[in-house]
Amino acid sequence: MAGLHLPLCRTNLIRSSSSPAPSAYTRPPVVTRNLSYWDSIYSDIETHLKKAIPIRDPVTVYEPMHYLTFAPPKTTASALCVASCEAVGGNREDAIVAASAIHLMHATIYTHDHLVVTDGSRPESETKITHRFGSNVELLTGDGIMPFGFELLARSTGSSSEKILKVIVEITRAVGARGMVAGEDDVIHPDRQLHGCGAACGAILGGGSEEEIERLKRFGVYVEKIQGLLSEKSKDEGAKMELAEKWRALALKELEYFDRKKVEQISTIVGV
Amino acid sequence: MAGLHLPLCRTNLIRSSSSPAPSAYTRPPVVTRNLSYWDSIYSDIETHLKKAIPIRDPVTVYEPMHYLTFAPPKTTASALCVASCEAVGGNREDAIVAASAIHLMHATIYTHDHLVVTDGSRPESETKITHRFGSNVELLTGDGIMPFGFELLARSTGSSSEKILKVIVEITRAVGARGMVAGEDDVIHPDRQLHGCGAACGAILGGGSEEEIERLKRFGVYVEKIQGLLSEKSKDEGAKMELAEKWRALALKELEYFDRKKVEQISTIVGV
Repeated sequence: MAGLHLPLCRTNLIRSSSSPAPSAYTRPPVVTRNLSYWDSIYSDIETHLKKAIPIRDPVTVYEPMHYLTFAPPKTTASALCVASCEAVGGNREDAIVAASAIHLMHATIYTHDHLVVTDGSRPESETKITHRFGSNVELLTGDGIMPFGFELLARSTGSSSEKILKVIVEITRAVGARGMVAGEDDVIHPDRQLHGCGAACGAILGGGSEEEIERLKRFGVYVEKIQGLLSEKSKDEGAKMELAEKWRALALKELEYFDRKKVEQISTIVGV
Repeated sequence: MAGLHLPLCRTNLIRSSSSPAPSAYTRPPVVTRNLSYWDSIYSDIETHLKKAIPIRDPVTVYEPMHYLTFAPPKTTASALCVASCEAVGGNREDAIVAASAIHLMHATIYTHDHLVVTDGSRPESETKITHRFGSNVELLTGDGIMPFGFELLARSTGSSSEKILKVIVEITRAVGARGMVAGEDDVIHPDRQLHGCGAACGAILGGGSEEEIERLKRFGVYVEKIQGLLSEKSKDEGAKMELAEKWRALALKELEYFDRKKVEQISTIVGV
């Protein structure tokens, strides 16, 4: 699976300082343990999205939309949404639409992050990507993908309207102005704040308690901070890995509140 | 009020062929009749938006957001949302959040439509605007304004969750992929399909019946088609005005279903 964000594992955290820091969009070292769990989630989200976005007329609109939805690497934020739903005892189907919507937000951000604007106001992207369409089409298509994510949610019938609205608030906050604000420790992640959001949405839809939702959300925020940190180049790799370990411990601390068996799968995302 | 889209009136439709076609973003000839009704709506929407988007820290995010929200000309689509709500017997307050959300969609579209991308894939904007920020900031801010519109709606408490979700579906369809598809007669309007959407949202929130919602939506679609047509340059001004008159008659036909007194104000948008 090209560009897949695999679960972080301890091998990420103890990577030698001489190895290059991976971009947020490149593939971390492959681990096989528990892969099938996350892989099955990615597969279910992809299946849902492919059904939701058929290539139809007019192809000038739907073909770029289809392409740009699946062009970015998968994000662990959408997978975390499903895993978080299952961790509080919900069914996977309850979270698939929200996970798909989160992927669509990620696709808009990814598309616009790599857009070529040449008035000098934009730092050149570190990750060179192939542009199949012109900037105009990529800009407009990104603008179409984002509301489509909200449409999928607003049209979904599996959960109560109140839960759906809560999920929409979570997502809008993650990708709106608040999501654009750099988090503490100045870690700015290209996905904005989608991981905490993904975890919270899954917990809401899975019927988690307020406490469970908040804890899984904080867990997701740490996952994002760790991923962001590991994707940054650092002069002091030792200090960087130390900080990652600290966040990893704090992330796992949030899971202690839960039944160990229920959160076993979800904890693998920070490598235990 | 700079750039205000005033209600179209008969004087628009019989403009001599030698007068320049107004851009979609320029001010149509001023009419005073019933202006106070539409003006009071614009004022209420602006008040709501100014409260919703304070300039606060970090100003690097909120200042451009505030500026780019109020930079575009007001759109009749958001005013139509309020008028449509009142036309079916609803209270203005029921529609103000949706009208504000529609303005925010319009602001995103306006901001991104005027973005400078210079790989040659974008036709140069006919309307020259002043760019206060760089393209990067304008791109990201537009991306933040759109979800903020959905957040306002998802957080609003005045209407039932079911109605809010219906409104979100209307808006996402108007600005998403379907909204990007050119309508019949190849009239592509820079606001996509916000007028039909605005009218439908107002009718939903005002408690209109399915029939009322559908008729007001079609009315809004005609309003948009007329505005789009009048903003285009044409080789045959006579034929253009004939078509505008035809659409105007069809628009008014939709209103015949309603109590004459209730829709008196709303009908002025196409100039009776």
